[in-house]
Amino acid sequence: MFILVNLKTYPCDPVAVADAVAAVDETTDARVAVAPQAAHLERVAETGAETWAQHVDPIDYGSNTGHTLAETAADAGAVGTLINHSEHRLKLADVDGSVRAADRAGLETVVCANNPAQIGAAAALGPDAVAVEPPALIGTGTPVSQADPEVVEGAVDAARNVDEDVAVLCGAGISTGDDVVAAADLGSEGVLLASGVAKADDPKAALEDLVDPL
Amino acid sequence: MFILVNLKTYPCDPVAVADAVAAVDETTDARVAVAPQAAHLERVAETGAETWAQHVDPIDYGSNTGHTLAETAADAGAVGTLINHSEHRLKLADVDGSVRAADRAGLETVVCANNPAQIGAAAALGPDAVAVEPPALIGTGTPVSQADPEVVEGAVDAARNVDEDVAVLCGAGISTGDDVVAAADLGSEGVLLASGVAKADDPKAALEDLVDPL
Amino acid sequence: MFILVNLKTYPCDPVAVADAVAAVDETTDARVAVAPQAAHLERVAETGAETWAQHVDPIDYGSNTGHTLAETAADAGAVGTLINHSEHRLKLADVDGSVRAADRAGLETVVCANNPAQIGAAAALGPDAVAVEPPALIGTGTPVSQADPEVVEGAVDAARNVDEDVAVLCGAGISTGDDVVAAADLGSEGVLLASGVAKADDPKAALEDLVDPL
Amino acid sequence: MFILVNLKTYPCDPVAVADAVAAVDETTDARVAVAPQAAHLERVAETGAETWAQHVDPIDYGSNTGHTLAETAADAGAVGTLINHSEHRLKLADVDGSVRAADRAGLETVVCANNPAQIGAAAALGPDAVAVEPPALIGTGTPVSQADPEVVEGAVDAARNVDEDVAVLCGAGISTGDDVVAAADLGSEGVLLASGVAKADDPKAALEDLVDPL
Repeated sequence: MFILVNLKTYPCDPVAVADAVAAVDETTDARVAVAPQAAHLERVAETGAETWAQHVDPIDYGSNTGHTLAETAADAGAVGTLINHSEHRLKLADVDGSVRAADRAGLETVVCANNPAQIGAAAALGPDAVAVEPPALIGTGTPVSQADPEVVEGAVDAARNVDEDVAVLCGAGISTGDDVVAAADLGSEGVLLASGVAKADDPKAALEDLVDPL
Repeated sequence: MFILVNLKTYPCDPVAVADAVAAVDETTDARVAVAPQAAHLERVAETGAETWAQHVDPIDYGSNTGHTLAETAADAGAVGTLINHSEHRLKLADVDGSVRAADRAGLETVVCANNPAQIGAAAALGPDAVAVEPPALIGTGTPVSQADPEVVEGAVDAARNVDEDVAVLCGAGISTGDDVVAAADLGSEGVLLASGVAKADDPKAALEDLVDPL
Repeated sequence: MFILVNLKTYPCDPVAVADAVAAVDETTDARVAVAPQAAHLERVAETGAETWAQHVDPIDYGSNTGHTLAETAADAGAVGTLINHSEHRLKLADVDGSVRAADRAGLETVVCANNPAQIGAAAALGPDAVAVEPPALIGTGTPVSQADPEVVEGAVDAARNVDEDVAVLCGAGISTGDDVVAAADLGSEGVLLASGVAKADDPKAALEDLVDPL
Repeated sequence: MFILVNLKTYPCDPVAVADAVAAVDETTDARVAVAPQAAHLERVAETGAETWAQHVDPIDYGSNTGHTLAETAADAGAVGTLINHSEHRLKLADVDGSVRAADRAGLETVVCANNPAQIGAAAALGPDAVAVEPPALIGTGTPVSQADPEVVEGAVDAARNVDEDVAVLCGAGISTGDDVVAAADLGSEGVLLASGVAKADDPKAALEDLVDPL
């Protein structure tokens, strides 16, 4: 299982969470990574934790003031990137452009989407993985695998129908090791989570709980 | 073949073009329709021409000042709608929402996209048809079927791989009957065109030329 | 006072509301107008009611599929337009472009904004009027003149500081004649309202109540 | 004069340019600063050069995946930020929100705009400075002060009319010391520039030329 901890713009210490991610990653078969804000990529990558960007823009080198260039994210230490997160929805043409930009820079890609139909669409753009996050469940603490298992199964079916090589991750509401196991049972190969780890008093303990049943 | 004449915001007389569309539609096996601006839908529909909207928003009845409700487009006489035209790109989640809104209102749907990957994505959202319009060719007078036939074939393959029931239209640069035949030969079931008819001195003659070889 | 009834995408009968607007406008010193959806402009204008668009895009004649051209809104019968309504926020450069487009087409302009600072900014773009609508009050039934009179006074001051010729309207929560009087007492020269009239069982009676104290 | 070198997403070495900025800043009365991409803020700030962000979002701490938080830009070493650059246009409400966010984080603010009307609007939002960059001149190498001096004078007048405390900078086409002097003569208190320094073979020499006549 792939476990990606999204730090959003939370008031957490990104280095402390990254240290926890790096430490727990060494103790488990799961692959654990952390996605800080762009301006924190470099200091997070320096911890040795697997570091992801939260977003890259559908751009190339050039006149793009204020945008995130995939090559610069990579230069700062990112090895992958989220694209089209529900808090940063992109135009269809720009999801495509961002996947191409990330590929060009050697970044692994996870394209997020709301429902199985959009997951099929995201998979058609050729990312490494897609992540299904029903907007109604984000930040609720209710895991999608429990509240709406058909969404996860539908997402897995939709992605497979389009491209069997695209992995499906599961977001929204994941907070315990049981949630991760339930997500895996529904056919997902990883989870996106955020507050459960980033806002935990002890991020390392929270991560250890998550990977414990794996 | 389906021939959809997009009037964009051209300074043409929408009723005159609609009259031509209605007249030519009666003389040919092709299905000919016209897409005026929202504020012209009603007077265009009154000509008897098959009338399409250029866009509908991913909304329902409610507090959406300045947006286009699918039910209102239908009420004004539209029977179908373009979605995600290259001049009105939408977020992936909103392409999905606009297709759902159009379905709800009984409008037929054509989702536009730039390239085969995006055509696959568009097809995954379940529209009636998709239309491939390489941005570089729009308005050039060079038909995609001639400049880049692989794009049309790739689009047909991409759509079929995702959903065999989704028809593929071909946009960008279509201006003659030969272009329409070439598009059909590449597997497309219709064409989108705009200036070739809307800006013609004699729209009826332009349409007659288009459908002549069919 | 100017009273503009915004029909949004409500499931109301736009012609019935327009008839009420036209009837009440004849019986009062206030100026009463109605803003239907673009596809309803023509049939609303035919009632004889003063008709406004809910939005125009910052475009000219040309290749702008799915957008609202100011000239077309005028051609369909609009004499003015809202711009930058809180349900249709525009980029700063596009608010400017939409005001220019509306001027070009002879449409009167009301630019909406959230707070006094943005009202000052809107006034600097040279519209005929600005309308302050604190987002927190929209749809609450609590008039801004009562919940937050400083916002209205602040908006009037901000507009006057920039351009004394720009009138200030007051939106959000207006539903009674007393609300209109309170708005006038705070220095506003009109009101925007929506559900209070558009969703009323008897729009004419609702409008008569609104203009009664004027 | 304030001279801000925008690195955009150019393929330049941000540390090399920052070193040049820091070195030249010490030799002149002008104030020289550099605006790298978000992911490069930290390493640029470590050079000792005055460091600016290219953009901040109108957000607070919280659930804002992929956005730029003003506090994080500050934490990474930025002391100011561009807002609403012509390559990153924002909604009017979001220009306001971004200025508030930057103020909250202690960042100095420069809001960009296209023309005198928009400069007045930007000034009404209370930034520290505004910058006028006619889109037609960006990247041309023709300085606005030469091609269209009325735009700069108009911008200075528009800003002063709204708020005398808001400084006016001049962007687009600045590349020589004479351009900087001309901008100052027209009433501007600084310049934005990009390729002239960022793409120079010798950024330090380019900067020395710029500040030489000051």
